[in-house]
Amino acid sequence: MRTFLDCIPCFVRQTLDSVRLVTSDDKIHEEVLRKVLQLASEMDLRQSPATMARYVHQHIRKLTSTDDPYREIKDRFNQLVLRLLPELASRTRKSSNPLETAVRLAIAGNIIDFGVNSKLDDSHVLDAIEHALIAPLNGDIEEFASAVQSAENILYLADNAGEIVCDRLLIEQLPTHKITMAVRGSPIINDATMIDAETTGVTDIIDVIDNGSDAPGTILETCSEGFRKRFGSADLIIAKGQGNYETLSAVAKDIFFVLKAKCSVIAEDIGCPVGGLVLLRSTQIS
Amino acid sequence: MRTFLDCIPCFVRQTLDSVRLVTSDDKIHEEVLRKVLQLASEMDLRQSPATMARYVHQHIRKLTSTDDPYREIKDRFNQLVLRLLPELASRTRKSSNPLETAVRLAIAGNIIDFGVNSKLDDSHVLDAIEHALIAPLNGDIEEFASAVQSAENILYLADNAGEIVCDRLLIEQLPTHKITMAVRGSPIINDATMIDAETTGVTDIIDVIDNGSDAPGTILETCSEGFRKRFGSADLIIAKGQGNYETLSAVAKDIFFVLKAKCSVIAEDIGCPVGGLVLLRSTQIS
Repeated sequence: MRTFLDCIPCFVRQTLDSVRLVTSDDKIHEEVLRKVLQLASEMDLRQSPATMARYVHQHIRKLTSTDDPYREIKDRFNQLVLRLLPELASRTRKSSNPLETAVRLAIAGNIIDFGVNSKLDDSHVLDAIEHALIAPLNGDIEEFASAVQSAENILYLADNAGEIVCDRLLIEQLPTHKITMAVRGSPIINDATMIDAETTGVTDIIDVIDNGSDAPGTILETCSEGFRKRFGSADLIIAKGQGNYETLSAVAKDIFFVLKAKCSVIAEDIGCPVGGLVLLRSTQIS
Repeated sequence: MRTFLDCIPCFVRQTLDSVRLVTSDDKIHEEVLRKVLQLASEMDLRQSPATMARYVHQHIRKLTSTDDPYREIKDRFNQLVLRLLPELASRTRKSSNPLETAVRLAIAGNIIDFGVNSKLDDSHVLDAIEHALIAPLNGDIEEFASAVQSAENILYLADNAGEIVCDRLLIEQLPTHKITMAVRGSPIINDATMIDAETTGVTDIIDVIDNGSDAPGTILETCSEGFRKRFGSADLIIAKGQGNYETLSAVAKDIFFVLKAKCSVIAEDIGCPVGGLVLLRSTQIS
């Protein structure tokens, strides 16, 4: 997906929110903001919004001299969703359609996105779970189930820490032997990296690789050769979150995008309401 | 008032809103936005937000080749408030404190600010009027009345078209022979210029001058020498709206700022809630 003009004010606001979350140093807030304004003034709008977000957070990390500014937040949300896991697993088992419930909960977990909302707290996650269990699902569970059954080699692209616990719940409803999960190669916002896959038990149930990139999405040219080969050989991709949608919606590949449409630009691009639950197959994108 | 970092995302959003209001040409939207991002990346934050807004709208007018893109909007809101005027005048007359009611209505009129909200419609104005008549007033009417009585030469700085009709109502509660109104020197957003003072009947009751400037506030160095002399010789200034507050809050002069605090930065600077009704004397600014 290209960058729309409406993404620009959002980048600028997100930049200020993010840098304030990382440091209380006003001079750094201003320095990062000016740098991002200058980058935005020259940006190639054919690139995805995730490309800009990658630059923004590279600058934040560099100017604050911190490799992983969201580490504490990631740990906090991993622990929150791990505490909720027994109940979520029980609700999934007891539901009339456990796969659909697990998909809905995996979408609920996608609320844990500090790129979109830097003021997220536990109550947002609890609300998102209840909403996801009853709101309309923009997608076809049967088609998803059938695609998973037919596929031999599935690559599951994780999105955020915390959310990854919900992904674990979904993966447990799928044929785990066919699935490899990919996490980001290095820290970017609160996106899941290998340590999140390990501490949330995902590595105990499936193979997990990292994509070698620090983009908040899957910008293939920034990923490792190993990841690109794995991506190329997969016959089905399950891609979580807005960042993976932004960066892969134009890639010719059989992909199910599984996400909560948290901003109006994404919602309009997909054709669903803001806040909508999305299970969209790439073949359906016009 | 200096520009705060929180003003920057707001400038960028306002730019996009404004240029879309003026033209449907996507290329111009992008061109204006890129220019403003570049200007914002280099801006002197010691300047007021109105300085930046002036540059933004100069670029919008230049790139769209329109001298007065908000003319139609200004006419519409002048007519709207003129239609409401008999009822507002009646409510003022019948109230227990007509001066306070007129001040409150003058503040209500300050909602008509397309710099802050480009999607404003009639219902916002009607709601603002009802709100202004009952909400707490951050200010002292008795002190205002006393200052007006003591002054010999009052300069009333108008803000927006439409709003200027409410200003007329307030001026009718004051000693009109002491008052001169100043409007902007040339079109900027929906700020009132001489034509608005004429078509709303303000020129029939008091002298009206223009300030020679196209800033959405009173940046003295951009004003005409004639206006600056008049400003210097006034012993009391009544300054309407956020733009006049932003540009004059640090000027050593006896000024009553009369406005609705429509954004969090202004509200915090003044020390009132967002949406608050403000009648603030410059001598009380710390």
